Amino acid sequence: MQLTAQEIAALLGGKVDGDPAAAVSSFARIENGKPGQLCFYANPKYESYVYTSKASVLLVNDDFKPSGAVSATLVRVPDAYAALARLMNWTAARGRTSRAHRGRCRIAWSARLGKKVWVGDYVVIGARCRIGDRTRIMGNVTIGEGTTIGSDCIIYPGVQIFPGMVIGDRVILHAGCIIGDDGFGNAKQPDGSWQKIEHLGNVIIGNDVEIGSNTTVDRAPMESTIIEDGVRIDNLCQIAHGVVVGKNTAMASQCGIAGSARIGEGSILAGQVGVNGHISIAPGTVVGGKSAVIGNVRKPGTTIYGNPAIDHATYLRAYALFKKAAEEN
Amino acid sequence: MQLTAQEIAALLGGKVDGDPAAAVSSFARIENGKPGQLCFYANPKYESYVYTSKASVLLVNDDFKPSGAVSATLVRVPDAYAALARLMNWTAARGRTSRAHRGRCRIAWSARLGKKVWVGDYVVIGARCRIGDRTRIMGNVTIGEGTTIGSDCIIYPGVQIFPGMVIGDRVILHAGCIIGDDGFGNAKQPDGSWQKIEHLGNVIIGNDVEIGSNTTVDRAPMESTIIEDGVRIDNLCQIAHGVVVGKNTAMASQCGIAGSARIGEGSILAGQVGVNGHISIAPGTVVGGKSAVIGNVRKPGTTIYGNPAIDHATYLRAYALFKKAAEEN
Amino acid sequence: MQLTAQEIAALLGGKVDGDPAAAVSSFARIENGKPGQLCFYANPKYESYVYTSKASVLLVNDDFKPSGAVSATLVRVPDAYAALARLMNWTAARGRTSRAHRGRCRIAWSARLGKKVWVGDYVVIGARCRIGDRTRIMGNVTIGEGTTIGSDCIIYPGVQIFPGMVIGDRVILHAGCIIGDDGFGNAKQPDGSWQKIEHLGNVIIGNDVEIGSNTTVDRAPMESTIIEDGVRIDNLCQIAHGVVVGKNTAMASQCGIAGSARIGEGSILAGQVGVNGHISIAPGTVVGGKSAVIGNVRKPGTTIYGNPAIDHATYLRAYALFKKAAEEN
Repeated sequence: MQLTAQEIAALLGGKVDGDPAAAVSSFARIENGKPGQLCFYANPKYESYVYTSKASVLLVNDDFKPSGAVSATLVRVPDAYAALARLMNWTAARGRTSRAHRGRCRIAWSARLGKKVWVGDYVVIGARCRIGDRTRIMGNVTIGEGTTIGSDCIIYPGVQIFPGMVIGDRVILHAGCIIGDDGFGNAKQPDGSWQKIEHLGNVIIGNDVEIGSNTTVDRAPMESTIIEDGVRIDNLCQIAHGVVVGKNTAMASQCGIAGSARIGEGSILAGQVGVNGHISIAPGTVVGGKSAVIGNVRKPGTTIYGNPAIDHATYLRAYALFKKAAEEN
Repeated sequence: MQLTAQEIAALLGGKVDGDPAAAVSSFARIENGKPGQLCFYANPKYESYVYTSKASVLLVNDDFKPSGAVSATLVRVPDAYAALARLMNWTAARGRTSRAHRGRCRIAWSARLGKKVWVGDYVVIGARCRIGDRTRIMGNVTIGEGTTIGSDCIIYPGVQIFPGMVIGDRVILHAGCIIGDDGFGNAKQPDGSWQKIEHLGNVIIGNDVEIGSNTTVDRAPMESTIIEDGVRIDNLCQIAHGVVVGKNTAMASQCGIAGSARIGEGSILAGQVGVNGHISIAPGTVVGGKSAVIGNVRKPGTTIYGNPAIDHATYLRAYALFKKAAEEN
Repeated sequence: MQLTAQEIAALLGGKVDGDPAAAVSSFARIENGKPGQLCFYANPKYESYVYTSKASVLLVNDDFKPSGAVSATLVRVPDAYAALARLMNWTAARGRTSRAHRGRCRIAWSARLGKKVWVGDYVVIGARCRIGDRTRIMGNVTIGEGTTIGSDCIIYPGVQIFPGMVIGDRVILHAGCIIGDDGFGNAKQPDGSWQKIEHLGNVIIGNDVEIGSNTTVDRAPMESTIIEDGVRIDNLCQIAHGVVVGKNTAMASQCGIAGSARIGEGSILAGQVGVNGHISIAPGTVVGGKSAVIGNVRKPGTTIYGNPAIDHATYLRAYALFKKAAEEN
């Protein structure tokens, strides 16, 4: 990629303030910018770097008034951070192929692949699968029989998808994630051993969902584990059998959601949160890092923290007293 | 699968109460049951659904007396939940192949496979491996040389098994789990760097064990990491070098057991528990979610909770006081 | 392997005290040693086993004076534990091949492999990759285009490496780890949905690094996620986009480091620790198990614990008071 300030302004609907021919070929943070790089400035905390940056182009907000000399060419846009994101997405999209491809792979005769589907090496696609247009499936992926995957999806290397799953459009399954393995269902027997409960259900993933690397999503014993539209799940999370993750919920790394829990729409779970089985979390709940949610959260928009999780401010105040007691003794 | 109430009753040793020809082809929860589906009812909390359910067949306990009109055909059994589990297991078993199969795979000449072993695509089986009868190995699995796997096992896609491991009968290794990688052994050097400690031992897994998706079980430096008979380990757990997990212990998702810890028989660890290295946990210990066990647990059958873990009731009482102090200040 | 006490003493620069022809072929812990095995003794806690051990050879410290009869041949060395580690490393190294090998794999024409590179089955190596001498790549690994890997590395089965990564010499990537997947970057939109932030950066891994099984290391949005020389990361850890892990830092299993955090050189993180995004941890920080570090740690060499993490001794004292309050009420 090589873009001039002029081209960038045109792409982003911005205005050039400086040399329109200033050219960049990569991105950097403002504190590290070098000639040939584009940086952005939005947070006033970093203003001093605007005047020392060696970057060739600087994306800034419309209303930014420099208080000193700036060597970079400015491209002014209404929202510099959003504009940067758009430019990065545009760059990433340009780097993507959109053509049919078959590596050394094993595709069942009865599987039906859409237009421009890209299939990497050592991929297995089972009988009666349906794969939508322009979906790309990277190396060493296994897709079980009867699974349906929508259009414009990306299935990264090492993903394993079980039979009978249903996956929407524009879904990204990151490397090594597992979709649809058995839930952890065991009935204790009188002799102390465990009887396995078989899982005959599946996983249904909506549109515009991302599931992180090495995350595991178990299928339901009957019916479905459901990941609704727009959900973002980070790496190494566990979504157990029969869970419902509501629309647009975001979950940071290493969260664990136990069986049949329901997470309301638009919730945000910080890293390493645990949620007990069979409970319901109201829409818009925010859960602090490492908290354990052990009961229903009934009021929408609550922020909670702790093990077990309680009101966020209460937890922090209690913790301050807990610490103070030790310091005074 | 299509089964009539009569056939179900025969399979489960139950009695039909209603139309013996009522037919079902899938399972559902009682609140969602539709015509052609089988539901079960055991928990009185859900009784109202018995009268509104559209399911064709309802598994109920022998002694259930409806207090209103029921449209479903009832199949009465001594224990409805256990009967459901048996019926699901029977259904799952019917869907399984039991025949020899070789995909596009790489099996060393000196490996010895039993009868009706199923090997999927892109599987590597190393020299001198022994695989028991009817074991099924799914796609993209690697099995290192000299490893022994028993009969009637299922090795799901993406599992990686290192050389020299010993795995019993009827073991299920879920997708992406890693058996026998190096333990995390490092000796600090005077210059601050770490000297790697090589691991020459292995992992021994007993009979009737399940290891969850993307779980990692490290091999011992010398001797063996041991997972005893009947153990159930959920997804994304870490079992470090030299650990012994006692018979029939169950461990929920994302637990981490540090090096050389010993977990007593029949223990139950809730999700995200951590256990320190070199400690012993008595048989029948129950550890609450997200707890950290940092010392020996000597008394069998104790329930503990917290970081560090203490008596469960004490933790909850202490936590209530912790919260109350903040609310009063 | 079959070694006599004499040969062992020669290898380790030690002295034989007993039968120089005593031979061993495997290692065991002192409490379990059998004829034909080598054990070591360093910790006085285990002295009684010296007199009951059936092992053929016992590695001991130079200055050890037995207080009873010992049946094993002793090999005396300045530091028995370090000598054992050296002997195990020597044994492990002997078992390794160092020769060129190509399994059934897919190597792009433009990839350049060094001398004696070993490539297993079902491996994909993308265009323009560079792989250094004697590096071994096990089965079912995918390496994206333009990635550079140094010499004498081991890439275990099921590892997935994204395009454009830079990996040093003598690096070990354990089974199933993911290097360079997208970071978790999402910008909230007015309608509650998330706009994906593309990640155009990479991951740079120094020399002598180990990354554990099923650990995930995300690439930076721009610039690089950096793992410096000598770092040791255990299994199932999450290293987010733009993180810097300082030289010789060791991180136990299931830690999660959020985006753009910086971990100072020589730090030690116990298992299941969480570190917030955008914070800095001073060199030599020690973080207790399951702690959450939510702010900068400015003083080098501090030991911290808790959620949120505070001074280690303060936390333990506060926790004792927390517990006592419950016991007294």
